[in-house]
Amino acid sequence: MITDDREMQNKNNSPALHSWHHSPIRQAIESFLTDVTDKQSEYFVPEHERIAVFDNDGTLWTEKPLLAQLAFFKDRIRPDDDLPRDVTQSGLFAKAVELFEDKVIDLFDDVADLMKELLDGVTTEEFESAVLQWLAEARHPRFQLPWTQLVYQPMLEVLQLFRAHRFQCFIVTGSSTDFVRPWSVPIYNIPQPNIIGSSLRTRLVEKKDRLHLEYLPVPFVITNGDEKVESIARRIGKQPIAAFGNSRGDIEMLRWTGQARRSLCALVHHTDAEREYAYSPDPPMHFGAGTLEQADTYDWQVVDMKRHWRKVFAHDTEE
Amino acid sequence: MITDDREMQNKNNSPALHSWHHSPIRQAIESFLTDVTDKQSEYFVPEHERIAVFDNDGTLWTEKPLLAQLAFFKDRIRPDDDLPRDVTQSGLFAKAVELFEDKVIDLFDDVADLMKELLDGVTTEEFESAVLQWLAEARHPRFQLPWTQLVYQPMLEVLQLFRAHRFQCFIVTGSSTDFVRPWSVPIYNIPQPNIIGSSLRTRLVEKKDRLHLEYLPVPFVITNGDEKVESIARRIGKQPIAAFGNSRGDIEMLRWTGQARRSLCALVHHTDAEREYAYSPDPPMHFGAGTLEQADTYDWQVVDMKRHWRKVFAHDTEE
Repeated sequence: MITDDREMQNKNNSPALHSWHHSPIRQAIESFLTDVTDKQSEYFVPEHERIAVFDNDGTLWTEKPLLAQLAFFKDRIRPDDDLPRDVTQSGLFAKAVELFEDKVIDLFDDVADLMKELLDGVTTEEFESAVLQWLAEARHPRFQLPWTQLVYQPMLEVLQLFRAHRFQCFIVTGSSTDFVRPWSVPIYNIPQPNIIGSSLRTRLVEKKDRLHLEYLPVPFVITNGDEKVESIARRIGKQPIAAFGNSRGDIEMLRWTGQARRSLCALVHHTDAEREYAYSPDPPMHFGAGTLEQADTYDWQVVDMKRHWRKVFAHDTEE
Repeated sequence: MITDDREMQNKNNSPALHSWHHSPIRQAIESFLTDVTDKQSEYFVPEHERIAVFDNDGTLWTEKPLLAQLAFFKDRIRPDDDLPRDVTQSGLFAKAVELFEDKVIDLFDDVADLMKELLDGVTTEEFESAVLQWLAEARHPRFQLPWTQLVYQPMLEVLQLFRAHRFQCFIVTGSSTDFVRPWSVPIYNIPQPNIIGSSLRTRLVEKKDRLHLEYLPVPFVITNGDEKVESIARRIGKQPIAAFGNSRGDIEMLRWTGQARRSLCALVHHTDAEREYAYSPDPPMHFGAGTLEQADTYDWQVVDMKRHWRKVFAHDTEE
């Protein structure tokens, strides 16, 4: 996997969307970047205002058959595990397994409950170690690969191209910030402060004359829907001019980004059951207009994975 | 005021602590930077882990006779102001004036109350405009200068020197993030995402088919004491290796930073009634060891403003 921009540049002279078929979508991305970075353009944006936000699950890597963080929790809940407390028999775990099996998409509330069960009193250092260990050992149930090899090559190229155009790229994810940070630098080349996600409250505790942070079983923020916009405002302090998402929880972030004078808003639509998965951006039950209708209303780019991507995963050799 | 690092470098070849007298403190800063950036050093730290955090009020600019954000609120509460609601007669305002007059230091809870009174329903854009207008018009009661001219020249040099050593510098302030962001780039050359401060909850509202964020009268986070550490962990995801503070609310941040294998922790001590102010880092009433005792216990550098700084404010011409 190519994660070093300099390496990419040496190989190909400059980063480009090699894994994208030529299409109006690819053209839209390229002309947006030209418009906002060409000093002669009426849409020129100075470097420090070039903010791009990316959902993670389903936008930068696969989220099926279940969210990676849920797979992590599922793997953590084993009878032989040294868990902070015994949750293997709890009703919550039974519910979680049911949800995994039903492949329900809108799991944010349940993630919060699971985090409560699994993280009360765990220190931030312990959690980071657990994530890294899991990533090294876990295999995706269908592709039998580490999850970090199931990132989308076309989106890695988008990240590289945006950075080459002096954008600051942020991940805005419903998964927890602390789940993404341990691997965001080697996999995406996105620095840890640029990960904006859900979190629990913490408590500063003193152990053997050293300060540690422990998780409390109380959600601090769940970064989905409206809260994605609110978290971006609190964390970045600026309206992004580019946003990539793939599901209902990204609608508000895409709409808000689309209010910029010149913006790029894109929805990754999962249409490729053969190479990845095919599914709706909406959960089975939802209210109001569907996400694809919103894309039409607000003129977002809809990336049709099957038609627009020559290659899906970073590890794929065939193109 | 020099705010552009390149400008500084052109003038002086490279940034340096020109406004600091030669002293063990200045040497401690310089040898720390050498230790963590020299590849041959046993304390070498890779660039992406070079995180430095700075308190703002009393550490980077003056906080006397009252915190700038309180001065802002005080100026906003005028009978002829078009305020969201009439707070001029409220008990809260009377209490605030009393606090201003008593020059009580530990005002964080009261700031939160004032923010409630003044910000309910105000949009983030309206608040930003109000801050910029106030900064352009307001004058410090003693020095009769805009507040942004009352930043400490020696600390601007520290920021420049840290950046020249490829540090990421963050402000961690008890004042609100949204109060500091409108001027952090021109004054400190610190980008808006690197401001970590207090905040209110917000609400995403639709007005004329556009999305806006309005403040709700509920604190989201008050960044003082333990919460400085918790906010740094949530926002940056890494333990800093350098921290500058000046008061009791910075103790935990300094202690936590001091747990790094090689760290620089510094307390700016206000000892210069003539050029600035002289006061204790502790509020009149406090429990446990004083801040200066903690500095001694944990071996922090104590910057004696009168003895160590050749020049105080960025605008001063005499040295």
